Amino acid sequence: MNRRKFIKTAGLGVAASATLAAPAIAQSGEIRWRMTASWPKSLDTLFGGCEHLAKRVSDMTGGKFQIRPFAAGEIVPALQVLDAVAAGTVECGHTAPYYYIGKDPTFAFATAIPFGLNQRQQIAWMEFGDGRTLMNEFYKDYNIVGLTAGNTGAQMGGWFRKELKSVADMKGLKMRIGGFAGQVLSRPGLELVPQQLGAPDIYPALEKGTIDAAEWVGPYDDEKLGFNKVAEYYYYPGWWEGGPQLDLMVGMRAWESLSAEYKAILSAASFETYLWTTAKYDAQNPAALRRLIAGGAKLRPFPRDIMAAAWKASNDLYEETSAKNAKFKKVYDNWSKFRDEENRWFRFAEGSFDNFMQSVSLQPIKRG
Amino acid sequence: MNRRKFIKTAGLGVAASATLAAPAIAQSGEIRWRMTASWPKSLDTLFGGCEHLAKRVSDMTGGKFQIRPFAAGEIVPALQVLDAVAAGTVECGHTAPYYYIGKDPTFAFATAIPFGLNQRQQIAWMEFGDGRTLMNEFYKDYNIVGLTAGNTGAQMGGWFRKELKSVADMKGLKMRIGGFAGQVLSRPGLELVPQQLGAPDIYPALEKGTIDAAEWVGPYDDEKLGFNKVAEYYYYPGWWEGGPQLDLMVGMRAWESLSAEYKAILSAASFETYLWTTAKYDAQNPAALRRLIAGGAKLRPFPRDIMAAAWKASNDLYEETSAKNAKFKKVYDNWSKFRDEENRWFRFAEGSFDNFMQSVSLQPIKRG
Repeated sequence: MNRRKFIKTAGLGVAASATLAAPAIAQSGEIRWRMTASWPKSLDTLFGGCEHLAKRVSDMTGGKFQIRPFAAGEIVPALQVLDAVAAGTVECGHTAPYYYIGKDPTFAFATAIPFGLNQRQQIAWMEFGDGRTLMNEFYKDYNIVGLTAGNTGAQMGGWFRKELKSVADMKGLKMRIGGFAGQVLSRPGLELVPQQLGAPDIYPALEKGTIDAAEWVGPYDDEKLGFNKVAEYYYYPGWWEGGPQLDLMVGMRAWESLSAEYKAILSAASFETYLWTTAKYDAQNPAALRRLIAGGAKLRPFPRDIMAAAWKASNDLYEETSAKNAKFKKVYDNWSKFRDEENRWFRFAEGSFDNFMQSVSLQPIKRG
Repeated sequence: MNRRKFIKTAGLGVAASATLAAPAIAQSGEIRWRMTASWPKSLDTLFGGCEHLAKRVSDMTGGKFQIRPFAAGEIVPALQVLDAVAAGTVECGHTAPYYYIGKDPTFAFATAIPFGLNQRQQIAWMEFGDGRTLMNEFYKDYNIVGLTAGNTGAQMGGWFRKELKSVADMKGLKMRIGGFAGQVLSRPGLELVPQQLGAPDIYPALEKGTIDAAEWVGPYDDEKLGFNKVAEYYYYPGWWEGGPQLDLMVGMRAWESLSAEYKAILSAASFETYLWTTAKYDAQNPAALRRLIAGGAKLRPFPRDIMAAAWKASNDLYEETSAKNAKFKKVYDNWSKFRDEENRWFRFAEGSFDNFMQSVSLQPIKRG
């Protein structure tokens, strides 16, 4: 809970890796890495974050440490970043760890689980709670090290072709929805049919009617991906992604080859990218939302009974998953205690300030 | 509004400084700087941020760029950091720019003004709005360059010896309150008597009864400074500090002596410290608030008529200050438009998610 802890977790076991053999690559003076991303080039906040991270590492090393980002599909598909890094096909990758819950649901804590942490709480748990320590312990089995390297902020609930009047309207809907949320939404009482698709595949599926609904991030990205052209109702909040984090996954061998200086530089560039990504979304989303509504999008809050059913279904799922999976339980117990403490405090200074400021803002955005 | 812009503002006019003479200090291979801070050593989040920043710069440079932080009073008093950096007494300083509104109220935008930006909105304005560009343009007259290097998150409203039932109870109260807020609170309808004191001087003044109320940051720091021992009522929110930013102020000459690599390293360490400071407060505040309440503190929201009077007084003050001060007006016009846009958007995804999570959190903190 102090500076040393942050550095230790940021530096990811410097003590352990410092005892390894001399870093052969670093000593040659020039390092060239490839970074495979889960994002298409068109998303200048997510893929732009990869470019920002690489540029900053280059700036800090006078061009001696070069990382080249590749978009989804250039080396491997969007949802195979972990596999490519674990196998050593590339040195690192930028992705949302919850894409890999098929391997183990524990991955989700490094991004978001439904009714989870907001952007501030996520980094607080990762760096001053036990988040990063627990996740890197878990990542060891996959031969990777994770650096905190992005966050979108709270997302929107996505685009629906039909208006949702109550929880009954969720039943049977085919929806593109990432991570753990699909499991929640397919439970009794909700019974939606979740689909996991990478960004480039969502629009065609929605256009053809293969799916009835889709969520991605928020106004700025969603406008770029064109979802408003094929679905009219835009729901909030994305209760399954209150502050989803992105990781730079680094292959263990590549990480251990770095000098202590380059490890510090790579992790500082990653932390900066966490801040950069959220700030860019926050700056761009307001105008994008206005454009979407001017173009016909109808902004709607999820009905209360959907929120209540999803909250109950999420808690039930976490209990069941904890009973079956000891790794998940270990992280969940730590995480849920931290989350509850955060929300008890956030309602006072932060929550009441934000609510006041939102209540006095003039010319509110009309909901369409 | 893109990666290049962030880097340009983070790198603070790299183009201009790259044309200067070769950096003599950098070429010698070893740099030793002194950083004077506005904080006592006891505040391990604010002064700890200075130590974190210095440690990270050292880590990234293999110890070749060393910055030694000094607490308030060791070189100059808490509120003279700007002067010491501008005069070249020290190479850099860590402070809240709004301490210098006596020189020009425009300084306040680099920290906070009443009813301003929250932590997320502040960095979005600084880096993807025009904030950093405008502030560094303004800073030029003081011979300094600012790097974004900390944020406390929304603060508490401070400690009062007597309960506030309505706006009439503010009249004549002597309160330690930083920055612009004192001017708002002394206006007609509020008529509080503001005092500007550095951290080490607040407790003795409150204990002796020289002042009736004091605000500092939030539970974690306020507990360390012991205010709960000499005042019973703890108010929220700190509407004058919704997301106050701290700057690393660097003397222009020292800044220009750095190589491009060291400029990038120093600004990355500063951005990381922005994230670090907020995350540390967010992780520590919940338990501190519980301890304060268990010890007898009574948590209270500001009465509605105080919020309404302060909101009106703030807007009046900004209009008047804009009419008199062209530098202030230039920044205020840009800033206020950005703020209003942010709040119109934040109410949807972010606001509704946070409100839901706060509403379902169990075992709420009792208000005492």
